[in-house]
Amino acid sequence: MKVVKFGGTSVSSAEQIKKVFQIVTADPERKIVVVSAPGKRKKDDIKVTDLLIKCGEEYCKTGNGKEAFRAVVDRYAEIAHELGLSEHIIDRIAADLQEILHGDRSNASRFMDAVKASGEDNSAKLIAAYFQSCGVEAHYVNPKEAGLFLTDEPGNAQVLPEAYEQLKKLRDRSGILIFPGFFGYSKTGEIVTFSRGGSDITGSILASAVGATVYENFTDVDAVYTVNPNFVYNPKEIHEITYKEMRELSYGGFGVFHDEALIPVFRAGVSVNIKNTNNPNHPGTKIVHHRNNQNGPVVGIASDTGFSNIYVNKYLMNREIGFGRRLLQILEDFHLSYEHTPSGIDDISVILRQSQLDLATERKVLERIKTELHADEVHIEHDLAMIMIVGEGMRQAIGTMSRAAAAFARSGVNILMINQGSSEVSMMFGVKASDEKKAVQALYEEFFTKSLV
Amino acid sequence: MKVVKFGGTSVSSAEQIKKVFQIVTADPERKIVVVSAPGKRKKDDIKVTDLLIKCGEEYCKTGNGKEAFRAVVDRYAEIAHELGLSEHIIDRIAADLQEILHGDRSNASRFMDAVKASGEDNSAKLIAAYFQSCGVEAHYVNPKEAGLFLTDEPGNAQVLPEAYEQLKKLRDRSGILIFPGFFGYSKTGEIVTFSRGGSDITGSILASAVGATVYENFTDVDAVYTVNPNFVYNPKEIHEITYKEMRELSYGGFGVFHDEALIPVFRAGVSVNIKNTNNPNHPGTKIVHHRNNQNGPVVGIASDTGFSNIYVNKYLMNREIGFGRRLLQILEDFHLSYEHTPSGIDDISVILRQSQLDLATERKVLERIKTELHADEVHIEHDLAMIMIVGEGMRQAIGTMSRAAAAFARSGVNILMINQGSSEVSMMFGVKASDEKKAVQALYEEFFTKSLV
Repeated sequence: MKVVKFGGTSVSSAEQIKKVFQIVTADPERKIVVVSAPGKRKKDDIKVTDLLIKCGEEYCKTGNGKEAFRAVVDRYAEIAHELGLSEHIIDRIAADLQEILHGDRSNASRFMDAVKASGEDNSAKLIAAYFQSCGVEAHYVNPKEAGLFLTDEPGNAQVLPEAYEQLKKLRDRSGILIFPGFFGYSKTGEIVTFSRGGSDITGSILASAVGATVYENFTDVDAVYTVNPNFVYNPKEIHEITYKEMRELSYGGFGVFHDEALIPVFRAGVSVNIKNTNNPNHPGTKIVHHRNNQNGPVVGIASDTGFSNIYVNKYLMNREIGFGRRLLQILEDFHLSYEHTPSGIDDISVILRQSQLDLATERKVLERIKTELHADEVHIEHDLAMIMIVGEGMRQAIGTMSRAAAAFARSGVNILMINQGSSEVSMMFGVKASDEKKAVQALYEEFFTKSLV
Repeated sequence: MKVVKFGGTSVSSAEQIKKVFQIVTADPERKIVVVSAPGKRKKDDIKVTDLLIKCGEEYCKTGNGKEAFRAVVDRYAEIAHELGLSEHIIDRIAADLQEILHGDRSNASRFMDAVKASGEDNSAKLIAAYFQSCGVEAHYVNPKEAGLFLTDEPGNAQVLPEAYEQLKKLRDRSGILIFPGFFGYSKTGEIVTFSRGGSDITGSILASAVGATVYENFTDVDAVYTVNPNFVYNPKEIHEITYKEMRELSYGGFGVFHDEALIPVFRAGVSVNIKNTNNPNHPGTKIVHHRNNQNGPVVGIASDTGFSNIYVNKYLMNREIGFGRRLLQILEDFHLSYEHTPSGIDDISVILRQSQLDLATERKVLERIKTELHADEVHIEHDLAMIMIVGEGMRQAIGTMSRAAAAFARSGVNILMINQGSSEVSMMFGVKASDEKKAVQALYEEFFTKSLV
C-alpha cells in the first residue's frame, strides 16, 4: 500500500486533477490520497488558503466578507465545472463554508483554523467526487471519523500518539481514500491545523500509521535541488537523501517538504519519494535511512533571510552564573523563540527571526535586558541571512569546514557567525542578507561543481 | 608615576627580591610596588600560597597544623636571613599567621581567605623591611587603611567603585609604597581575596586609581608568547597587544596575566607593560588601546583542556519556547557555569568545565534533563579542549576562518564545534583533548610561520 500526497499546484485546476487521477489509478497500490487546497495556477495567482485567510479575517472584523467568500467558491466551481461535476458539489462546498463563517468567532485562532481547514476539506470532497464520476470506487474520509487526533494548539498542532492506532484501520477500507491534508481534531472535537504547509505532515502520519511501502509526495518540481534554483542556474538534483539531511534542509529554508513531516515516516521506516505531478516518470528524490555517499560530504545548501541578532555585552558576564538563563527568560516573557546563541567572554548574541519583533517589542526587550541584567551594552542588528550546509558525509570528512570557509573567503563574504557542534550533519553560517546569494553560489561551486571546473 | 607589580617567582627568594629592589630604585617614577606571595624557586618547589592553603585546611579539620605552619614561616625566615634582616620581622610574620590560624574558623571560606591573604601581606611587610634596610624610604601599605574595598565574595571578590577615590590618595604619600596583592576588605572589614592570581588585579586597580603613566607587570618571561611554549619551540613574542586581545587570550588559557586585571587599566587608559624581572632591559609586551597590525590578523593562539559537552536531543525542540532556558536553569540549580551552547534544530550542546562535575552531580544533572525536559537523548562527552585564536585584525580579514579551518584540516584534526560570532576578536574551536597540541601547532604554523616556509 502506498500513501500519495498531492500539493497545492497539483490540485490547482481541473487539468491538474486529471493528472492526479491518472497517477493514482496507474498503480493499484496507491490507496490513500492526501490532498492540499488548490494552489497557484500561475505565478501571480492566489492560493485558496490565502483567499480563506482573507475571508476569515474579514468575517472576524466585520461579520461579513462576501467578496472573499465568492472568490473561494468560484475557484472550486471553476474546477468542478471543468471536471464535468454537477452543481451539487459546489452547493455543498458553499454551504459548508457559510456554516463555518457564521459559526463561533469568539476564539479567533480557533475560528481561523476551521476556515483554513475547509480549503483542504473541500478539495478532498471535490476530488473524491471526480474520481467517483470516472467510475472508480473512491471515498472522501473525514479526519475526525478516521481518528486523526491532534494536540489542541491552533495553527501549530502535533499528532497525538493514540491517533496511529485509529488511523491504522484505514488499511481495511475498500476503494481509494481521499483524505484532506493540513488538519485534524482535538480530543474535544475542535478542528486544529498543523503549521502552514502541513499537508505533508498528514501524509507522513497516514503512511506511518498504515505501514505504507512508500510515501509518495507529488509536487511541481522533478526533484529536490541541491541549492535554491533562484541562486544557481540549473542546479544538480538530489537523487537520495537521508531523513536527517532532509529535515535540516527543510528547516534551513528548503520549501519542498515540511520539516515536521519527516519524523513519523522516519520512525516507522517508511521511505519517501518526492515526485513531479507534471512529470511522473522522473524518479524524483528518495528520502531514506542510508544512502550511498556519491556526491562528496555535502548533499545540499539551504539559506534563509529575516534574522536579527541581539547583542549583549557585560563585563565579567562569564563569571555570572545564570546570566544566559535570565536573558532567555526575558525573551520567553515576550514569547520569542531564538535560533542560536553564540557567546564570548563578556558577550552573548541571540539570533532570532525578526518577523517576531515589531519596533515596540524590540524596544521593550532591549530595555529589559539593559536594566534587569545591568548590561553594559545592548543592541540589535537586522537583516541577517543564515546559510546551512548539510550532509551526513561531513561527520567523517575532516576538511569540510575548510572548504566551506575557503568558499566564503573567495566570494568576499564576511562570516558573521558560525554555529557548528551540536548537529553532526550540518553547519550554520550567519552573513548579511545582502551577501546571501553570493555566499550560496560560492558554496555550490565548491561542493557541487568543483570537479567540473 | 608608575605602578609596578612583581609576581610569585620575582619574590621567591632573597636573590629575586634584590633584583626587585634594583628595578624599582632604577626609576624614580616607580612609586607603588604590588607584590605577590613567594612563588616557586625551582620547578618542584611549593608556592607559599599552596603551603598556606594546606595549613588553613588542616586547622579547619583538626584545629592544628604545625608542620605546614612551620613550612610557611621557614620560607620567609630563609629569605629574611639571606637579605640580612633582623629576626624581628620573622617573629612578626609568625605571630601574625598564628593569630589568623587561631581566629574565627566558623566560616571556612572566610577563614581560608584570611589565611591565603597573609601570603601577600607578609611578603609586602618583608620587602618593605628590606627596602628600608637598604636606606630607601619605603612603607608597607595595608589595603584596608588604603581603602581597597571589595564585594563580599570570598575567593572571588570584585572591587567596589568607591575604592578608587580612596586609593587615589596614595599619590600624595612619600617614599616607595609596598602594597600586598591579591586581597582587600569588605565594607564590614573582613579580608576577601580576588580569584587565584589576583595580584595582577590589585596592581591594575592601583594603576587606574592613581592614574599611572604605565602599569609594569614583572614576571619570569621576556614577553607574552604568541602560543604556549610547551607546544611550539621558541615561539614568537608579542610586542604589542590590545586590552581586548589580551583579555581573550588570558581567558583562553594564557597564564601570564589575569583576565580580570585588564578592565581597570583599560577604563582608565593606563597601558600595561609585561616585563621580565630576570631580564629587565627586554622591552617585554605592551598592552595598549590600539596597535599596529603587523603580524597579520592573529595575535595569539590560546588553548585549554578539561571541558565536557552535555548533549541533549529532543524532537521539535526548536518549536518549544523556553527549552534552552529550562536547560540552563537545571545547570544553575547545580551552580554550574557553562562556556558555550551550540545548537541544532532538535539538539543543543552545553560546553562546560569538567572540574565542576563529579560523577554523582553528573548523573543527577543528566537525570533531571532527561525527566524534566522529556529529552529523547542526553549524554555527556569528556576531555575536550577549547582552542581560541585571537586578533583584532580578524574583523577586517575575510579569510581568517578559511586559513584556520585549513590548518585544522592539514593537521588531520576534526573540529567538534565552533563558536564564532559574538566576540569580534576571537574564534573558538572545540576538539578532542588529545588533538590539542597538533591543532595548536598547525594554527601556529598557519598564522605565524607561513611566510618563512
